[in-house]
Amino acid sequence: MDINILLFPDFETLDAFGPVEVLGRISDYALHFVSMDGGTVTSRQKTPIMTKPIDHTNASGILLIPGGQGTRPLVHDEDFIEKLKHAAEQATNCLTVCTGSALLARTGLLDGRKATSNKIAFDWVKNVNPAVHWVERARWVTDGKYYTSSGVSAGIDMTLGFIADQFGSDQASDIAHGIEYVWNNDKSNDPFASKK
Amino acid sequence: MDINILLFPDFETLDAFGPVEVLGRISDYALHFVSMDGGTVTSRQKTPIMTKPIDHTNASGILLIPGGQGTRPLVHDEDFIEKLKHAAEQATNCLTVCTGSALLARTGLLDGRKATSNKIAFDWVKNVNPAVHWVERARWVTDGKYYTSSGVSAGIDMTLGFIADQFGSDQASDIAHGIEYVWNNDKSNDPFASKK
Repeated sequence: MDINILLFPDFETLDAFGPVEVLGRISDYALHFVSMDGGTVTSRQKTPIMTKPIDHTNASGILLIPGGQGTRPLVHDEDFIEKLKHAAEQATNCLTVCTGSALLARTGLLDGRKATSNKIAFDWVKNVNPAVHWVERARWVTDGKYYTSSGVSAGIDMTLGFIADQFGSDQASDIAHGIEYVWNNDKSNDPFASKK
Repeated sequence: MDINILLFPDFETLDAFGPVEVLGRISDYALHFVSMDGGTVTSRQKTPIMTKPIDHTNASGILLIPGGQGTRPLVHDEDFIEKLKHAAEQATNCLTVCTGSALLARTGLLDGRKATSNKIAFDWVKNVNPAVHWVERARWVTDGKYYTSSGVSAGIDMTLGFIADQFGSDQASDIAHGIEYVWNNDKSNDPFASKK
């Protein structure tokens, strides 16, 4: 299975690399770092990553969308959103972290579906598309093929939850143990919902 | 302050990018991704990062050393270890994650000092240099300018601990909140020590 991690300027580093750490431990998964045009993409925390153009990848794989400051201009970039919609429609599963859900929401594919995002940016995310059923108290939310998580480190919990759904909770627990991570495996347990 | 993140082939992705997420939120810190020879370095989880040669950086900054499978051959690479020793000696602080402490231990700079590493690889790490006082039950350990953490996600806790030591615990708590991370702020609280 191909895992396509969609990067863009000023993405939040851990939004991408928490899930990458988990997904990269599944031997059946082949990870690809992609962007709309390919080339070097630099995160908010100044990490330069080499990417392939998204149209050079197998879009039927799993699509991971991080969040971060870079999402703020991109929700107004119609070309980006159109290409994202095409990629997300073709993907077997689509996972977002933090304000990555704002980008996905902007495509319209979450309309009428449940989703979440990080708590500090929640009001902005809701305004991007009020037709989504935004869940304010959730570590992560699943609706059909879509997984959306709260902020940054919540992406690790969600991705372990995704692995549990795909391969069983023992596999997810083994990975959590392997990375010495105390997995919050209850998607409704959101320690940050009340601290907005 | 310059933060030099030393990468090498098959480093563990989250070992580097957990700390990077935290350190990248300090406005006074300038992050640099370096390797012994520069060029693209690919993590164990297939992330290609562009790096600068380590001798092009300001070595008096803070040095971060991740761990991972890539450390296994490198403890036998005398040229790598000699250059690492030079960099670590010049650094104001030196932080290691997971088996990154095996590399640092191999330089001799940890001889007689307390340090830790991840629990799954602990016996191997101890054998790399038994002259280190290896602490088996610790989320992270500090000794002088050296910070060493347990496996993978422990690097996030340690780096928040480093920020607390440098800037106060409020700043560290604010960053933990910003990334929606439940910080284990007690370096002696090691949930994985007994599960070796």
